[in-house]
Amino acid sequence: MTETTAAGIPSGSVLPATIDPLSANETASGIPSGSAHAPHLSATQTHGRPAHGAVDALRTALGLRAAEVEAALDRMMPPVPGAEARLVEAMRYATLGGGKRLRGFLATEVADLFGVPRARSLRVAASVEMLHAYSLVHDDLPAMDDDDLRRGQPSAHIRFDEATAILAGDALQTLAFATLADPSTHPDPQPRIALVAALADAAGASGMVGGQMIDMEGEGRALSLPEVERLHALKTGRLIRYSAEAGAILGQAPPPVRDRIAAYGRDLGAAFQVADDVLDATGTAEQLGKTAGKDAEAGKSTFVALLGIEGARAEADRLARAASAALDDFGPEADGLRALARYVVERQN
Amino acid sequence: MTETTAAGIPSGSVLPATIDPLSANETASGIPSGSAHAPHLSATQTHGRPAHGAVDALRTALGLRAAEVEAALDRMMPPVPGAEARLVEAMRYATLGGGKRLRGFLATEVADLFGVPRARSLRVAASVEMLHAYSLVHDDLPAMDDDDLRRGQPSAHIRFDEATAILAGDALQTLAFATLADPSTHPDPQPRIALVAALADAAGASGMVGGQMIDMEGEGRALSLPEVERLHALKTGRLIRYSAEAGAILGQAPPPVRDRIAAYGRDLGAAFQVADDVLDATGTAEQLGKTAGKDAEAGKSTFVALLGIEGARAEADRLARAASAALDDFGPEADGLRALARYVVERQN
Repeated sequence: MTETTAAGIPSGSVLPATIDPLSANETASGIPSGSAHAPHLSATQTHGRPAHGAVDALRTALGLRAAEVEAALDRMMPPVPGAEARLVEAMRYATLGGGKRLRGFLATEVADLFGVPRARSLRVAASVEMLHAYSLVHDDLPAMDDDDLRRGQPSAHIRFDEATAILAGDALQTLAFATLADPSTHPDPQPRIALVAALADAAGASGMVGGQMIDMEGEGRALSLPEVERLHALKTGRLIRYSAEAGAILGQAPPPVRDRIAAYGRDLGAAFQVADDVLDATGTAEQLGKTAGKDAEAGKSTFVALLGIEGARAEADRLARAASAALDDFGPEADGLRALARYVVERQN
Repeated sequence: MTETTAAGIPSGSVLPATIDPLSANETASGIPSGSAHAPHLSATQTHGRPAHGAVDALRTALGLRAAEVEAALDRMMPPVPGAEARLVEAMRYATLGGGKRLRGFLATEVADLFGVPRARSLRVAASVEMLHAYSLVHDDLPAMDDDDLRRGQPSAHIRFDEATAILAGDALQTLAFATLADPSTHPDPQPRIALVAALADAAGASGMVGGQMIDMEGEGRALSLPEVERLHALKTGRLIRYSAEAGAILGQAPPPVRDRIAAYGRDLGAAFQVADDVLDATGTAEQLGKTAGKDAEAGKSTFVALLGIEGARAEADRLARAASAALDDFGPEADGLRALARYVVERQN
């Protein structure tokens, strides 16, 4: 099952050599640790409260994991010849070559807790990154957010054209489900269909796309804090929560354990979004890789507008701590996930 | 499992009362007939060569089945309150209130061969109609075919707006997969995941969306007959073939039987498209419920352009007979499917 990434890094070892991690085989509360894999991020932190060193290590691990997810995506979307070549080219353009792969990291990092072979969890990671990429391609369209810049590059409809971008987004969503349905993702159809159901629930009208609709409807009108919270819980939160849950589904975790992972994912996603609003208000286009200050310009209600910069920072911090607290029954094998909760509120892009 | 349609017609009996059908319990070549349901269309036809009376009866059955599929779609997309209400409204607008439901008929009619409860096959039928509706919504967008009229009504982006149409299409695709993944579709996860895999294969970059891309690329340039055949085999053929196969998957048909059903669906889909080109060239907007002559105007290569009207009619006829021939191992229980093959080349809209 061991695979090698594009960079030649064995997929099982994602930590920089300078880290001397603790054993990840200890478990708390009977939760299986799995740990068929790489040691987890735990060297430099206090249980439940990652030190800054842990966040630095997480940053490195994120980069390495992103390379693994990138390689998996590259393998799963090979260029094709013929008249439809342009479609696959646009799908690759929209998906490869960038992004923090936060969702892919979450899926694989949680799956590691349950001893899932990385070759399987990388498929789930690639699938959710395809789904995320589709949503960005459609969100950037002129009729939607009309954004010409994405990850510092021309958006898909600028680099190609609108029709190709619409179709590439459509096909990326389809491929996300095709990837989950394939027996390579899990030999047992039960976890595969559970992944399909959970992704569809997170991505559809009562999840991500519902949130996008609320976002469109809310432009130019002042939303209340609960309205903004719900918007983001759907628009970005549900897919982030799914990413964490997906690792638990793939690992066939018992329902109460899956619920705790879902709670972690929910609070992490909320923290991510509040922090994103802070970044959008304070960052530069260069830092963000996308147009800065777009939300305020579009008359969108943001956490910063509702809470102020400092209030939003405090809320992000509170949510990150709540996310970590959901993992209290896990031991040091979950330290990477705890560090991630700090990372999403401390990142600069 | 018996359900009642919107019109109060029990879903098990789809034939007009004037038809006195043969028993559907006889089987040929060991293919299970199922027939937990309604008698099938077989009263007035010669085996393999449906008489005109059979096509008339099929037309009536199609109308009744369409009402059943419509009722299922209505139940599965209830209006929602709140800020995302508009999204669900657009999904319903794009999906309900029209269409021949050819794909839904195919899925349920094939499933009947294997004794699948109608409550289950209607879910599969609704799912493929959602997928089809999403493709039409996106196809009609200004950046795509730019068509203001669909089924005689304003297209979704005209009735709502472009952003809402993009999102409604996206959410309809997601809901199609969610519907298949739900245990109500089948208690066993194996057929459910097989349905998801088959739909994703039919709908994605190597299927329907690939065909849409080829269609866009081919505008204004003369395509050869093999190129046009491949375009349509992907753009419309794959989803029609899937619709037939889906009934066999749901019925857990053995692979050789599923293959014959797939061959039927493939040839039926091809016949449908050639006949569609004939209709587009000869019909009026009133007959078609959409703008007529669009293909020629857009400089698209059509079967009519390549074969002439009479040549295209002959080709459609040949394909319809090939479709029926794929069912030769089935008995009278498949007469409805044989009549459908005639119907798709004889219809006026």
